[in-house]
Amino acid sequence: MTHDMDLVIRNAHCATACMTFDCDIGVKDGVIRQLGGKMSSPDEIDANGRWVLPGGIDSHVHFDQRKTHGGQNADDFYTGTVSAACGGTTTVIPFAAQHRTQSVKWAIEEYHARATGNAVIDYNFHLILSDPAHPDFTEELSEVCDAGIKSLKVFTTYPAIRLDDDALLDIFNKAKLHGCLVMVHCENSGIIDFVTQRLLDQDMTAPKYHLASRPAIAEAEAVMRICAIAELFNVPTMIVHVSSGRSLKIIDMARDNGATIFAETCTQYLTLPQSLLDQPDQEGAKGICSPPLRSAAESEALWQAVCDGTLDVVSSDHSPYRFDETGKFAHGRDVPFTRISNGLPGVELRMPLFFTHAVQTGRIDINRFVALTSANAAEIYGLSGRKGTIAVGADADLCIWDDDYRWTINNDRMHHNVDFTPYEGMEVTAWPAVTLSRGRVVARYHDFTGTRGDGQFLVADAALTRHEMTATQKELNAFGLRLSPRQ
Amino acid sequence: MTHDMDLVIRNAHCATACMTFDCDIGVKDGVIRQLGGKMSSPDEIDANGRWVLPGGIDSHVHFDQRKTHGGQNADDFYTGTVSAACGGTTTVIPFAAQHRTQSVKWAIEEYHARATGNAVIDYNFHLILSDPAHPDFTEELSEVCDAGIKSLKVFTTYPAIRLDDDALLDIFNKAKLHGCLVMVHCENSGIIDFVTQRLLDQDMTAPKYHLASRPAIAEAEAVMRICAIAELFNVPTMIVHVSSGRSLKIIDMARDNGATIFAETCTQYLTLPQSLLDQPDQEGAKGICSPPLRSAAESEALWQAVCDGTLDVVSSDHSPYRFDETGKFAHGRDVPFTRISNGLPGVELRMPLFFTHAVQTGRIDINRFVALTSANAAEIYGLSGRKGTIAVGADADLCIWDDDYRWTINNDRMHHNVDFTPYEGMEVTAWPAVTLSRGRVVARYHDFTGTRGDGQFLVADAALTRHEMTATQKELNAFGLRLSPRQ
Amino acid sequence: MTHDMDLVIRNAHCATACMTFDCDIGVKDGVIRQLGGKMSSPDEIDANGRWVLPGGIDSHVHFDQRKTHGGQNADDFYTGTVSAACGGTTTVIPFAAQHRTQSVKWAIEEYHARATGNAVIDYNFHLILSDPAHPDFTEELSEVCDAGIKSLKVFTTYPAIRLDDDALLDIFNKAKLHGCLVMVHCENSGIIDFVTQRLLDQDMTAPKYHLASRPAIAEAEAVMRICAIAELFNVPTMIVHVSSGRSLKIIDMARDNGATIFAETCTQYLTLPQSLLDQPDQEGAKGICSPPLRSAAESEALWQAVCDGTLDVVSSDHSPYRFDETGKFAHGRDVPFTRISNGLPGVELRMPLFFTHAVQTGRIDINRFVALTSANAAEIYGLSGRKGTIAVGADADLCIWDDDYRWTINNDRMHHNVDFTPYEGMEVTAWPAVTLSRGRVVARYHDFTGTRGDGQFLVADAALTRHEMTATQKELNAFGLRLSPRQ
Amino acid sequence: MTHDMDLVIRNAHCATACMTFDCDIGVKDGVIRQLGGKMSSPDEIDANGRWVLPGGIDSHVHFDQRKTHGGQNADDFYTGTVSAACGGTTTVIPFAAQHRTQSVKWAIEEYHARATGNAVIDYNFHLILSDPAHPDFTEELSEVCDAGIKSLKVFTTYPAIRLDDDALLDIFNKAKLHGCLVMVHCENSGIIDFVTQRLLDQDMTAPKYHLASRPAIAEAEAVMRICAIAELFNVPTMIVHVSSGRSLKIIDMARDNGATIFAETCTQYLTLPQSLLDQPDQEGAKGICSPPLRSAAESEALWQAVCDGTLDVVSSDHSPYRFDETGKFAHGRDVPFTRISNGLPGVELRMPLFFTHAVQTGRIDINRFVALTSANAAEIYGLSGRKGTIAVGADADLCIWDDDYRWTINNDRMHHNVDFTPYEGMEVTAWPAVTLSRGRVVARYHDFTGTRGDGQFLVADAALTRHEMTATQKELNAFGLRLSPRQ
Repeated sequence: MTHDMDLVIRNAHCATACMTFDCDIGVKDGVIRQLGGKMSSPDEIDANGRWVLPGGIDSHVHFDQRKTHGGQNADDFYTGTVSAACGGTTTVIPFAAQHRTQSVKWAIEEYHARATGNAVIDYNFHLILSDPAHPDFTEELSEVCDAGIKSLKVFTTYPAIRLDDDALLDIFNKAKLHGCLVMVHCENSGIIDFVTQRLLDQDMTAPKYHLASRPAIAEAEAVMRICAIAELFNVPTMIVHVSSGRSLKIIDMARDNGATIFAETCTQYLTLPQSLLDQPDQEGAKGICSPPLRSAAESEALWQAVCDGTLDVVSSDHSPYRFDETGKFAHGRDVPFTRISNGLPGVELRMPLFFTHAVQTGRIDINRFVALTSANAAEIYGLSGRKGTIAVGADADLCIWDDDYRWTINNDRMHHNVDFTPYEGMEVTAWPAVTLSRGRVVARYHDFTGTRGDGQFLVADAALTRHEMTATQKELNAFGLRLSPRQ
Repeated sequence: MTHDMDLVIRNAHCATACMTFDCDIGVKDGVIRQLGGKMSSPDEIDANGRWVLPGGIDSHVHFDQRKTHGGQNADDFYTGTVSAACGGTTTVIPFAAQHRTQSVKWAIEEYHARATGNAVIDYNFHLILSDPAHPDFTEELSEVCDAGIKSLKVFTTYPAIRLDDDALLDIFNKAKLHGCLVMVHCENSGIIDFVTQRLLDQDMTAPKYHLASRPAIAEAEAVMRICAIAELFNVPTMIVHVSSGRSLKIIDMARDNGATIFAETCTQYLTLPQSLLDQPDQEGAKGICSPPLRSAAESEALWQAVCDGTLDVVSSDHSPYRFDETGKFAHGRDVPFTRISNGLPGVELRMPLFFTHAVQTGRIDINRFVALTSANAAEIYGLSGRKGTIAVGADADLCIWDDDYRWTINNDRMHHNVDFTPYEGMEVTAWPAVTLSRGRVVARYHDFTGTRGDGQFLVADAALTRHEMTATQKELNAFGLRLSPRQ
Repeated sequence: MTHDMDLVIRNAHCATACMTFDCDIGVKDGVIRQLGGKMSSPDEIDANGRWVLPGGIDSHVHFDQRKTHGGQNADDFYTGTVSAACGGTTTVIPFAAQHRTQSVKWAIEEYHARATGNAVIDYNFHLILSDPAHPDFTEELSEVCDAGIKSLKVFTTYPAIRLDDDALLDIFNKAKLHGCLVMVHCENSGIIDFVTQRLLDQDMTAPKYHLASRPAIAEAEAVMRICAIAELFNVPTMIVHVSSGRSLKIIDMARDNGATIFAETCTQYLTLPQSLLDQPDQEGAKGICSPPLRSAAESEALWQAVCDGTLDVVSSDHSPYRFDETGKFAHGRDVPFTRISNGLPGVELRMPLFFTHAVQTGRIDINRFVALTSANAAEIYGLSGRKGTIAVGADADLCIWDDDYRWTINNDRMHHNVDFTPYEGMEVTAWPAVTLSRGRVVARYHDFTGTRGDGQFLVADAALTRHEMTATQKELNAFGLRLSPRQ
Repeated sequence: MTHDMDLVIRNAHCATACMTFDCDIGVKDGVIRQLGGKMSSPDEIDANGRWVLPGGIDSHVHFDQRKTHGGQNADDFYTGTVSAACGGTTTVIPFAAQHRTQSVKWAIEEYHARATGNAVIDYNFHLILSDPAHPDFTEELSEVCDAGIKSLKVFTTYPAIRLDDDALLDIFNKAKLHGCLVMVHCENSGIIDFVTQRLLDQDMTAPKYHLASRPAIAEAEAVMRICAIAELFNVPTMIVHVSSGRSLKIIDMARDNGATIFAETCTQYLTLPQSLLDQPDQEGAKGICSPPLRSAAESEALWQAVCDGTLDVVSSDHSPYRFDETGKFAHGRDVPFTRISNGLPGVELRMPLFFTHAVQTGRIDINRFVALTSANAAEIYGLSGRKGTIAVGADADLCIWDDDYRWTINNDRMHHNVDFTPYEGMEVTAWPAVTLSRGRVVARYHDFTGTRGDGQFLVADAALTRHEMTATQKELNAFGLRLSPRQ
């Protein structure tokens, strides 16, 4: 007997970013080919009326980056993607980093090499740019973008990689030319350095002082700077890991002026308390990330923005530093907070934690959950059609959710190569029972069932702007000036 | 040979409120049963890769209402729904009106009688309430709501039907109890009467003075009043035909306080100029509607809100008054603007006009078009799952769009029973080539191909709130007070 | 020897709303005739470098109003003004009330009769209007306004006096004609009644439930309604006793639209906690006022508005009800909160309390203190030039302040005819050492030294608007419509 | 006969920032000694009931600065202050500029040398800082501030003087220590350079393209950056020459967070049209200033802010470049807009122009005129008590205004050493009939009557903050961190 399909998921209670429907899902060649109707296949999974959702897209993860903040990423593309898959994430967009003096082409090739044969789910890269003055930069960037990289990442902070205004303007201008989005880590470097020095001067060196060293105004200032540049070029721009209500206000203002500004927050800013850093014996290092965890009031402002649509994406900013000399303590254990590696692991827990805290508390409905964890990222990062949805023609990246589940988080059972999780002891009440990547079951609850190297590189489509011209472009246009050929 | 399906639409380029996909659509028993895959059917339509969108939902139309504003609705449920169908609308939610001293049960039964056997597409009713003091009101309202009416309409203006604050509070309270949404025509009656009297005192009686008689502040004031009551009860509330930026600011404020406020505007406020009213010989009467058409700046503010998501629904507020003594001039031809019947026809042109002005200008994308004209209304008015989407299990209410079409609007070719259209001479550049209601082709371009009486009454689901409690409810709750059993 | 002056205040450290200077002050015939330079007088007071400030203007006090909220005002014009004088207030603007069916002319004459021969400091009246339908209303109002009454007070709540929109429109229109300001007690009556009924239904009758019965949204709604009407006519309008941040936002919005909206708060909303109402045995009745005391967060929002200039005036809303059957318990002692007389005494403590909490904490400077307690009221209510300042030609209404004073508030030492103060036990750290009314010493610290009947009626100047036209007036004007001859 | 006074101004109709009064003004030793009462003096001026206002304070003028933007300041301290005096300005605060590698002490001494013996009215200096890395900077700044300089000026633009974030942080920190205010020219240098390069690339070199080269977003971005730093340190900060509504929004936001931000605009942004730059043969160079003149809508936003109190100061930013090779064309006549010297003269016309456009149009009242042109600057820059007011003890810096005057502006009759005025041909309808500096008549209408060298240096008081802590300082304080000893 010939089968229509390779796999049928029966009795699926499906949700996408805007729709809810019940049907069987037919998969062939890794793609959803049929919804509803009669189908036969050699393989079947019965969803039993459970939620079947698009697999998660974690658009902010660090895998196999070496020597950032001193420490090494403990996760390579294998452990990182296994961890992702076991938490219901079926697409990741890690970073490929150009360090100063490096060629961007070399950087992309290097990261392709690190991922190929290792990743267990599909991926694209954001390209971190730290040296636009490199002699081959302009030519290579063009080449790299043509080959499917449409997201450029820049930093306004960290001495080794931060860019000044001129460099930022240059990169946004090139982003416009190549149809790229620019992702930005927004924090004012000068303010942070100044405050940090005052803390160190007063022997305030314990991990908790990390919280004081990066006030919300440092973030808001950089957000404004980036929104200004974004508006000048009308380049779609993602403000990553927004951690404060002040930044949201600046973002609102920029949107009112016609800028295409997207905003991301991360699980940790929604669920972890500042008290995590206030523990004895450097235990607090487990909570050090940037921007820092903020007050409960700021967290509440972020939840409000999750609910009302101001925030577009919830990612993990997975930064896998072990609690040892390879990671958090690369500069020694008894160091001030400034020398502790900066970042938290979280790719595996993002989806279940957010399901628990957002959906099961009634804060948002299931469609908005799909939007924030998957569909919006697909659209923003040029993967729509293929990822983030349940539709004929889309990749069969799916999770069957068990929302009648209860687990107290315990690092022993996790798949990342990090020896702690900042969420240890917290409870989740939902978990993906079955996770499929292009029709293959890659995880069942906490068990990885996929294959090393099955993940493929995704060629991203050009990023889109929301308006033809921003207010600033109209202002320039009144004098007959257009900044770039793409405008 | 047995067929799986009754009808297959081949090569559909589909869009819903959040997704775009290409597949064949299989319809059986009026329902979408299969997307993609193999299907056979006795009947096929080839979409040829054209957009296939959910049929429109016009959630604000007046059919067969008698003696409102003096005139008679020229459209009954037959001509009205034929007109709707020929413009790509497959669901309407007209009003059933309780006039003072009337029983609401009688009103609903009466409108059921008017619709049954006449409507050519599906429908639900909004129930206009003007007499909550009627002795059987409480009991009958409960009965009516249980039978699938979940949307109550009230007015803050028009002497014959407007309700004072106490009556509004009573109705919102009951709406909470019965899971209903409240729709509100928001304009401050006192302000309008006062300004109108000053106009009449100065012999400013021509149609154009209608524009002056209802300033934006009258709308904004009533919006605030209604938002306050909505927040008190946490009742989902639709502010209909928003015509000014001031009202949008009040709505934003209410949403920030946790109220579930929806906002609608209509095609006319986005596309018709005020100059329509400034014509000789009472011609201007063709542009009289309430709230009135406002300035170009206000129209721009509405377009901004269409784009940024502040507005949820674009409807027609189809008010079919003929340009004669049965309609516009029921009180005579040579009367001041106050005695001219109030409202514009538009159910047939809403979808093509909005497609032309919103999608084809690049202001919004196709998904947002679906959201604003169909999907949002389905969700807000308790019809989701069945209407406003293309999904397995949903009704096969679909339009195949021809966006390579050009027509100069001409009332002769229209199907409403009105002898003019305010859009006469304007151009549309898209039109539904084929419109299906539950799988039956009801229109091909401008030709009606359906059957009188095929439309069915839709039982609406209970309306949902966005937040568990509003700011005011939290304030009351701090003192242990809950206003209603449903809270 | 002939003297230039009747009195010289030596070594005065003066502050007005915008200036600070040191000089001698020469007074003749009750008026400041000379600042600085040589002067001789039979009488001298040495200020010793202490602050000499304009005497306070309490523009919101109730004296000798009979049968409002059931209770009697315990203070007549004698005890009330003695109390005011002993707390550094040298001008009061109490109410003259038209009750329904009464003539406004009779009302003003009646209150003139109550004040004449009794008041110890100068006064004007606000005219409470509750019956614009009275046959002589239009004519008498004109007469009364011509005779120096330029402030009309209306209520949106309290059944006996509240006005509906039509009546409000009529009064604002007449206010425009007569150059009057309109003061408004803004609370939505329907919301309050509805919530109150739910409280009573659930036996929530103790004084503390008064707090729940009047939520902030009821105030904000009425503020919006009044701002709309104010903007229609461009009538200067005072929103009295603002108690919540929501109302301030509406006021900001109205000002942005060009309306001349003034805002007042009262000492109690800045300094008294809600816990005052949560005491056993009806003790909580001592804290019942309307709008009610709100949360600490609302109080903080008011302080912010005190500092940033959003609020114009801090008054007392002195409402002298005794804690007995003549006052608070006019309807019996064992009654629900709804039947307890509504209001707090405070005219004597306003200035010292606000000096203590606003100036001595560093929240505002001395000039803003003068503005909020005196100068702004003078300007708003048509008394500028004469009152609220220290300038040649102004009345010598002055306080020499002792800001090195400490007193625990104790009702026994107060001069009002009320048997309690809600501020009992709180501390003030400043008090007027000497208070002068038109050059006569009317108080030294807590001792009254003035003379019954020395107070005079002040003829108010016409109220002024901030802008020639409001946004709504521009909107109407575009159609050639002007609402009133004064516009 | 001995006289009490040196001079008496009879029949003065006086206005200060908050008061209006009529009296004689007695002056002795240059100081107002007596208001009202009997006085004798050898000299009298009869004001005849005309407005007598505090003399203007122009807190933003450039005199005798050499080699800025290439050109030379045509006005030295003599011609500059004569021009000021003839336009009713009696105090100026020009700049003393530290260029790179220079000592700040030397700079102040140098400017003292330039002013002493030349200035005809009193003055203080703002100290421009461009090199905080100078080895003696810290020590010398302390010395200079102790000697009465309390206002530091920094730039975020212009390559020769602009400071990066680290330098700005250092200077704000030191400003806090020394009780200084920081004045900032806010424009993002990178954005301007980028846009300018695109203009030059497209041969858009005429003067009018100057308008395009500095979009409003460049200003708003820098305002945000400065507000962030100001909030960090709680340093009073003046945003000079605000030219756009966007910047005002950022300023509002910063004030809401407790920062002490002052805002200035200049006459040209309120009254000159952009068309001034669009003239043939480099005539447009007469309108080149930075920020540039903006659209009529922006100008309207500034007027709104003048009226509602958002703006504190209206200055001239007098930049005296002649229309020749010494000034505007120091780099040649046939140069692109980027090489034309940047700035407009205006010290003489500021007061009459603003009186004409603000007071005589009814936009603001006389008291607000005094506030914006004189009193606010006195308070902000540490000169209150002495300047900006009419009070006993204050310097007799006064203008008797003729508001029944009409003059078409004509550069021939002006006193600056500039060969054009951008206001040529505009009309003013008020002018100071008599201007007094410390009791000496320095001008009668357009005639200078003072004496070279009579102007004195004014020692400024420490600048004050509006709130004890800003939101960011509270945030840091929660972790026990205080940034500076002064905090």
